[in-house]
Amino acid sequence: MKEIKSIAALAARFSTLPGVGQKTALRYAYAVIDMTEDQVDAFCAALKEVKSSVKLCSVCGNFTDSDVCDICASRSAKKICVVSYPKDIAAIEKSGAFDGVYHVLHGTLSPMDNRTPDDLNIKSLLSRLSGVDEVIVATNPDVEGEATAVYLARLIKPLGVPVSRIAQGISMGSELEYADAVTLSQALYRRTSL
Amino acid sequence: MKEIKSIAALAARFSTLPGVGQKTALRYAYAVIDMTEDQVDAFCAALKEVKSSVKLCSVCGNFTDSDVCDICASRSAKKICVVSYPKDIAAIEKSGAFDGVYHVLHGTLSPMDNRTPDDLNIKSLLSRLSGVDEVIVATNPDVEGEATAVYLARLIKPLGVPVSRIAQGISMGSELEYADAVTLSQALYRRTSL
Repeated sequence: MKEIKSIAALAARFSTLPGVGQKTALRYAYAVIDMTEDQVDAFCAALKEVKSSVKLCSVCGNFTDSDVCDICASRSAKKICVVSYPKDIAAIEKSGAFDGVYHVLHGTLSPMDNRTPDDLNIKSLLSRLSGVDEVIVATNPDVEGEATAVYLARLIKPLGVPVSRIAQGISMGSELEYADAVTLSQALYRRTSL
Repeated sequence: MKEIKSIAALAARFSTLPGVGQKTALRYAYAVIDMTEDQVDAFCAALKEVKSSVKLCSVCGNFTDSDVCDICASRSAKKICVVSYPKDIAAIEKSGAFDGVYHVLHGTLSPMDNRTPDDLNIKSLLSRLSGVDEVIVATNPDVEGEATAVYLARLIKPLGVPVSRIAQGISMGSELEYADAVTLSQALYRRTSL
């Protein structure tokens, strides 16, 4: 069957979304055919609205639809949690375990991908440090995230601000049997007394 | 964190797509933020293009962007394969095992959901039967699909056209151990000699 051009074109658009393969993209495109014209118009409007209204917080780099994000506007800036991407903020906020402000690097250091400190949102972090009690680095526990954390610590500690790193270990609810060797050795090395 | 309105609105749109939950919808919305304005415009254009260009083939009811679909326009109408939805055609075409034409019912009979024969694309099927050698009913092997198949057979056979049903049995590559009881009993009952 010759594919219908417009369906194939829409499926190609859907397949640019994260984790969407050809089959899923085609399924989404078929679903659009079943939508009413009003629904399609509303979909378009929502797409354009996100693109036009969402910008970066001028203080921390998080997504916001005003100049300063809600978190920066409403919380004490005594503790700054540094993350790689805005979506990491959503994850930490969900945990409810942090009541300070954030700083979004918009990436990690990666010599392989030619991402140097100049490519990250680091300068504005340094300008926020006066009066700060602690900087918590919450980049991912992988090679790039670790390298970024070490780099930030070397940069910030000399300025007299304590820098900490989120703990590594066995995830709650996971099974030792299936933990990878590095995680397990980290969990042993960083054991806490009971 | 207070959610950004436009992101939540877009996520709500994405979650109307089949199989997309809240978390995935939010992930898609974040991905849209990272798109360029041109990409978002192209996405919108593709959405609207599908809605405006895709219509139903006047012969078989399949999706098409002209009056008659490619399959109806190019193939012999000696064998008609009846399916519930256009996406079923895509699946059968992929198998390469059928070279006749199709007829799309756009649904199945369902007393529970108040779908009667009048709600399905059946009348135009009956008007296509002159000169047809066989009607193959390829509705899903579930209660509604079976009921629809039986109904069509009763309707069409008296007109002198043979009606057949796609075979049921164990799927290729699946394991007997995990087959459900109905499938297994059908597979035994419909066994073929070697």
